[in-house]
Amino acid sequence: MAVHTLHYVGLDVGGQTMKAAVVDDSGAASPAVTKDTNAAAGQARGLETMVETIRAAVAAAGLAMKDIAAIGVATPGLMDLKAGIITDPPNLKPWKNVPVRSHVETAFGMKGKVAFQNDANAAAYGEFWVGAGKGFNSMCLFTLGTGIGGGIIVNGSILEGEHSHGAEVGHMRIDLPDRGRLCGCGRRGCLEAYASAVAIAERTKEELATWRGPSKLRELLRDADGRDITEADCVKIFDVAKHGDELAMKIVDDTAYYLALGACALMATVDPQAIVFGGGMTKTGEHFLVKIDEYVRRFGLTLPAERVKILYASKGTDAGFIGAAGCARMLVAG
Amino acid sequence: MAVHTLHYVGLDVGGQTMKAAVVDDSGAASPAVTKDTNAAAGQARGLETMVETIRAAVAAAGLAMKDIAAIGVATPGLMDLKAGIITDPPNLKPWKNVPVRSHVETAFGMKGKVAFQNDANAAAYGEFWVGAGKGFNSMCLFTLGTGIGGGIIVNGSILEGEHSHGAEVGHMRIDLPDRGRLCGCGRRGCLEAYASAVAIAERTKEELATWRGPSKLRELLRDADGRDITEADCVKIFDVAKHGDELAMKIVDDTAYYLALGACALMATVDPQAIVFGGGMTKTGEHFLVKIDEYVRRFGLTLPAERVKILYASKGTDAGFIGAAGCARMLVAG
Repeated sequence: MAVHTLHYVGLDVGGQTMKAAVVDDSGAASPAVTKDTNAAAGQARGLETMVETIRAAVAAAGLAMKDIAAIGVATPGLMDLKAGIITDPPNLKPWKNVPVRSHVETAFGMKGKVAFQNDANAAAYGEFWVGAGKGFNSMCLFTLGTGIGGGIIVNGSILEGEHSHGAEVGHMRIDLPDRGRLCGCGRRGCLEAYASAVAIAERTKEELATWRGPSKLRELLRDADGRDITEADCVKIFDVAKHGDELAMKIVDDTAYYLALGACALMATVDPQAIVFGGGMTKTGEHFLVKIDEYVRRFGLTLPAERVKILYASKGTDAGFIGAAGCARMLVAG
Repeated sequence: MAVHTLHYVGLDVGGQTMKAAVVDDSGAASPAVTKDTNAAAGQARGLETMVETIRAAVAAAGLAMKDIAAIGVATPGLMDLKAGIITDPPNLKPWKNVPVRSHVETAFGMKGKVAFQNDANAAAYGEFWVGAGKGFNSMCLFTLGTGIGGGIIVNGSILEGEHSHGAEVGHMRIDLPDRGRLCGCGRRGCLEAYASAVAIAERTKEELATWRGPSKLRELLRDADGRDITEADCVKIFDVAKHGDELAMKIVDDTAYYLALGACALMATVDPQAIVFGGGMTKTGEHFLVKIDEYVRRFGLTLPAERVKILYASKGTDAGFIGAAGCARMLVAG
C-alpha cells in the first residue's frame, strides 16, 4: 500500500459475522479480518466486537490507529442514519437503539470521522466506487440473497432517504397488493416476494406441483424438505438450469423477468447509468444476466432501456466493507 | 418587489401556450405573461416566441433585462437536459432537436445564466421551493392531467436522471406488464394507464358497462361520446363523486389507490419527506387526498408510511415558471 495515500477502515456488520479491512484512497483493501457478531450476547458486547474488529483490521494492514483518517461502519437496519443508530434490526436480535457511530467515535477519539451506513447502501457504494459501477455517475444495486437489498447512488452520493428507507428496492412493488405474492414484510407484490432466494424456492415448489415433465428440481427440493430453504439451494436451482433442465430454466427466466421489472422501476425514477446485480445467484453464469438485460430492453422506457448498462457486481461480499471505507473517505476527502 | 433581491425570469413552455414571469429570491412572482406557443409554425418561430415572452415578462415586472440575474426555461420532453435541447417533443410537433438553452443564452447575451429543465421537474421544484414542499429537504410531485408527470427533489436538487428520464413517475409500473392496462407509451401496467384523466375516463366507461345501479356518470360520458375525453370531464367525475354518486365514488377511490401505489414506489426508492399531488382533479376537494393518504399508510413500508406527508400542490399552473426561475436562481446563487 502506497505511503502517500490516506487510509480508512471499513467495517461491515452482518447477522452472523462482521468483517473489516483497511482501504486506501484507490479503494484497494488490505487483508480482511472477520469476527463472530454474536448478536445474542447483547449490543454492548456487539459494540466492543466492532471496535476489536476495527483494531484487528488496522493491525492486519501493518498500520496503527494514528494512520487511519476515518472509519466507516455498515450495519443491517432498521436504522436512523442521521442519528448514527441501529434502531430495530431483525438480523441482530435482541439489539435495540444501538448508538454505533458515537460508540466508535468515542472508542477511537475520532469525533466526526466515523461514517455510518446501511449495509446494502455501503455495498452499492463499494461497487460504485471501485467495482462494477466504477466510472459511472449514478448506479443502482440489487443484492440477491435470502432477501433483496440494494442501494442507489446519484451524482456520487448515496440516496439515503429521509427516514433511512432510500433504496428499499426489495419492497418496490411489481404487482398489485390485492393479488401479488406475500412478502416477508407482510405486504403483497414486493419484488422480494418474487425474486429472493426464499421466493424462488417457493415458486419452484409451486411449479413442481403442476409440472408434468422430468426435472432434477424434484430431487433437489425433496432434500430441502423440512428445513428452511437457503440461498445455496437457490444457487443449485440456477446450476441445474445451466444444464438444460427445462423447469429450472423457466424458474431462472421468470426470476430475470421480475428483476427486470425492478430495474425498470428504478429507470423510471432514478434513471441511472448502470444497474448492478450481486449475490450468490449471479455467480452461476452470464445467462441469467443476459435474460435480465433482455427483459429490461423489452419493458423499460425506450431511451433509458437503450442506454442503461445491466451488469453483475464484481466485489462480492467485500463490497460492504469497501463501501463503508468509501463512506469514511467521503467524510474527510469531501 | 424589494430592490435588494435578485430577479430571475421563469418561462414555462406548454403545447398550447407559454407563460413567463419575473420571480425574486423569495419566490414571489410578478404578473405572468402568456403567449401562444404555436408549435405548428415551426421551432425557429417557437424560439423567437420564447425570447419575446421573456422580454414581455421583464417589462410587465417594470424591470429591464440588465436587472435579470438568470433565466430558467422549462419545456415538455423528450429532451437532453445536459445539452439544453428538446429532442423529440410529442406535444410540440413538428419540433426536433431544438437548442433552447443556447438560443436564449445568445438572444440575451447571458451565457451560463440560462437554466433548462423538464416542465414537470420545474413544477416539482416550484412546489418544493415556495409551494406545498416548502421547508422540506426532499419531495416528489405527481401532476395529474391527460397524462401523469412529476418530479423528484432530493436534498434540494432535481433528480434529472442520466438520460433526462428521472421522475417519469407516470411510467412507474403498478401492475405486471403481461396483464396491466395498456399505456399511451405502448407498455402495460404504467401508473398513467390507471390514474391519468384519460385512464379514469376509460375505467369509468368499463365500470358503466357492468354497473346495475343509477349513476350520473352515464349521462356525463354520453355527452363525451364521439370526442376525446378531457381532463375537464375527469374533474366532473370527481365532482359527481362529491355529491354521493356511488359509481363515481368508486372511480375516485380506485384512482386514489393507484396513485398511492405510485407514492409507495417512490417511498421505497427515494423515501421523500413529502409527496405532493397537483392538477385539475386535486381542485375538487380534500376527500381524494384523504383517500390517497389512507392507501399510502396501508400499503407503504411502515416507517416511511407513518412519516411521509401527503399533500396537494399549492401553486397550480404557476409552479412551472416559478420552478424554472428557481432553477435559474440555483445557477447563480449556488
